[in-house]
Amino acid sequence: MTELQQLETPGLVLERGKLECNLARMREHLAKLGVALRPHVKTAKSYDVARLALKGQPGGITVSTLKEAEQFIPHGISDILYAVGITPNKLDHVAALRHNATDVTIILDNVESAHIVAARGLALGVKFPVLIEIDSDGHRSGVKPEDDALLAIGRTLNAGRGAELRGVMTHAGDSYNCDTTEKIRAMARRERDAVVRCAQRLAAAGMTCPIVSVGSTPTATFSDDLTGVTEVRAGVYMFFDLFMAGLNVCSLDDIAVSVLTTVIGHQVDKGWIITDAGWMALSRDRGTANQKVDQAYGVVCDLAGHPIDDLLVLSTNQEHGILGDRNGRPMDVGKFPVGTLLRVLPNHACATAAQHDRYHVVHGDTVVQSVWPRFSGW
Amino acid sequence: MTELQQLETPGLVLERGKLECNLARMREHLAKLGVALRPHVKTAKSYDVARLALKGQPGGITVSTLKEAEQFIPHGISDILYAVGITPNKLDHVAALRHNATDVTIILDNVESAHIVAARGLALGVKFPVLIEIDSDGHRSGVKPEDDALLAIGRTLNAGRGAELRGVMTHAGDSYNCDTTEKIRAMARRERDAVVRCAQRLAAAGMTCPIVSVGSTPTATFSDDLTGVTEVRAGVYMFFDLFMAGLNVCSLDDIAVSVLTTVIGHQVDKGWIITDAGWMALSRDRGTANQKVDQAYGVVCDLAGHPIDDLLVLSTNQEHGILGDRNGRPMDVGKFPVGTLLRVLPNHACATAAQHDRYHVVHGDTVVQSVWPRFSGW
Repeated sequence: MTELQQLETPGLVLERGKLECNLARMREHLAKLGVALRPHVKTAKSYDVARLALKGQPGGITVSTLKEAEQFIPHGISDILYAVGITPNKLDHVAALRHNATDVTIILDNVESAHIVAARGLALGVKFPVLIEIDSDGHRSGVKPEDDALLAIGRTLNAGRGAELRGVMTHAGDSYNCDTTEKIRAMARRERDAVVRCAQRLAAAGMTCPIVSVGSTPTATFSDDLTGVTEVRAGVYMFFDLFMAGLNVCSLDDIAVSVLTTVIGHQVDKGWIITDAGWMALSRDRGTANQKVDQAYGVVCDLAGHPIDDLLVLSTNQEHGILGDRNGRPMDVGKFPVGTLLRVLPNHACATAAQHDRYHVVHGDTVVQSVWPRFSGW
Repeated sequence: MTELQQLETPGLVLERGKLECNLARMREHLAKLGVALRPHVKTAKSYDVARLALKGQPGGITVSTLKEAEQFIPHGISDILYAVGITPNKLDHVAALRHNATDVTIILDNVESAHIVAARGLALGVKFPVLIEIDSDGHRSGVKPEDDALLAIGRTLNAGRGAELRGVMTHAGDSYNCDTTEKIRAMARRERDAVVRCAQRLAAAGMTCPIVSVGSTPTATFSDDLTGVTEVRAGVYMFFDLFMAGLNVCSLDDIAVSVLTTVIGHQVDKGWIITDAGWMALSRDRGTANQKVDQAYGVVCDLAGHPIDDLLVLSTNQEHGILGDRNGRPMDVGKFPVGTLLRVLPNHACATAAQHDRYHVVHGDTVVQSVWPRFSGW
C-alpha cells in the first residue's frame, strides 16, 4: 500500500467515500422522480468512476468527445450520447464507432446540419440517430422551443434513410449563474418545460420523439418534478467542486477531488507559502471569481483533506502555487515548513481533473487504495 | 499528405515557418549578446520543437517537470536544469535520472531545502548540483540578493558530499506585467544585476559559482547587455501568443500555434457563431484580460491563419466556443456556415498547447507536413 506521503507531487487525489455518497444522493433523488440517469463522463473520463455511477441505471452515458466514446466502448458501454453539436468532419468517426451494435446518438440544432448528417448517413449506408438540441435558457446553442426550425429539422432528418429523429435534449447551463436555490429550481422547471414542449410539438407534427433529455448538475439536484422527461444527464455531481459549493449544490465536505502539493519555500515578509502545484496542476479556472465567495485558485486543506482556515491558493504560475491568507492578513508561514503536504480543493472539477492522467484513490484516510487511469484529448 | 480540412476538430496547429523565424530571432539576438540559450521546454513539451531550438546552442535544456527530463533524456539531452524549487519527494527521482551521465541540476531558495538535499544526496551516494534561486522582482520565489540566507544556503550545500553549489538563477516573471518596452528593458537589467551581484557575493565568500542564469521571454527579447550572465532560459518565444503580442514582444503574425475548430451552429439574433473548441481545447487562460487589449478567449482567424477583423472567442464552455464581434456589434453569421473551419490564436501558448497531445505542423499553407507528439503530466 502506498501512502499519499510517498507520492511525487503534484497529483490528483480522489476520495472514494465522498464519490460514492455523491453518486448515491443523485441516484436516489432521480429514482424518486422516476427518471433515468445518463451520467456525463466528461468530468471523470475514467471507466472506474463511470462504473460506479452507472449502478442501478440503464447503462447509457453522455460524452463530450468521441475519444470518450472510444474509451468506453471496449468496456461494454453500448448506448452513448455525444452531446456537442456534430461537425461534418466527425461523421465518419461516429459511423465507425456505431459499428458492432454500439449506439452513438448525435445532436444538432439547425437545418443546415440536419441536411449534412442525412446526406452523409445516406452516403455511408448508416442511419444516424439524432437529438435536436433545444435552447432552454439562452446561454449557448439550441433551437428556441417555439421556433419553426424545430419541425423543419425533424422533417429534414426523417426525410431519407441517412438519419432519424430520436428526440430532444437541452442543457440549462445558465443554472451556473443562479445565485439562489429557488432560482435553480425555477431553471429546472424551465429546462423541463422547454424539452417537453418541443417533444409535444414534434409529436403533433407526426414525428415520434422517444427521448426527452435534460441535464446540468444544479438543475438535476434541485428538480422536484420531471414529468415528461425520460433521462437526466449530469457529470460534475460525481466530484463536486468549489463552484458547485458556491451555488449551495454541495458542501465543501462533499468535494471528492483535490490536488496534492508540497511546500517548496516561503516569502516570509509577504506571508506567502510557495508550492509545486501551479495552474498546470489546478487549471486556470477561476469560476468562483464572480460568486459571492471568491476562492481564488482553490481552498487549501491539510493532508487529511480538512480545509485550513482562510488559506487559499492566491495565485499561480505554471508549476508554482502562491498560498496565503484570504484577507491578506499576516501568516505564520513557519507552520508549513518545506516538504509539508497539502491538498487543494478545485474551483472546477472538470478543468482540474483534465490536467491529470490518473486518480490516486483514498478511502477515508491517506492510504492509496487504487490508481485509476483517466484520459484526455479528442 | 493530409490537409487541415481533413482533420477532426479541435486540434492544435503549428506553423513551422513562424516557429523557425521565432527561434532564429532569439538565437541571433543572444549570439550578439554573447550568451548561451538554454531553451525552456515547458511550452512545447516536444522533442521535435526542442531539436530546432537547440541549433547552435550548447545543448542544455530547462524543464518545469521531471516528466520533461524523462522524455528528453532518451533523445540524448544530457544537461538539464529542473527550474522549480525541489521537493523532498522528488529527490530519489532526480537521483535516478542522474544515472548514465545525465546531469540534472535542481534549484532551491532556502536553508531548510539545502539541508534536505544535502542529507538525501549523502544517503543516496549522489552529489546533487544546485542553483540558488534569486528573487529579482518580488513576483514569486527566491532569495533577495542582499539576504544573508544566500551565503548560508551556499555553505550548507557545500558542507558535505551530498550536494554542490553550481550557481545562481532567477526568472523575472514580473516582466509579464510591464506595459512598455522600456520597463521590460529596465526589468532585464534588474534581473541581470540581481544574479550577477549574488554570484559576486558567493565568490567573495569563497564559493565558486560557474552558472549565472536568467530568463523570461520578455527580458530575453529586450536585454541589451548580459555581461556576467552565462545563460538565458526562455520558452514561450518559440510559439508566442496573444499575451506576448500585448506586451509588444511579438506581433500577431509571429504567433506559431493556433487551435483548429469547426462551426457547429449559430444564434443569429445574438450574432453568435458556435464552434467545437471550448476551454478544453483553448485552456481557461484569460491572461489578456488585464492588458490594454482584452482578447477574450482568443483571436479568430480563417483557415489560412489570417485574423478576421474583430472576431473573438467571446466565451467558452468545456467543448463549445462562442464567437462574436469584439465590440458587440451585429454580425452576419451567415458568412460562417456550419462546417466552416477557423483557427484561434491563444492567450497563452503554454496553457493552450498543454491541452493537446500533438502538433499538426503546416508550412505556409494548409497541408499537414508532420504530426509531432507532445506530452503532459509530471
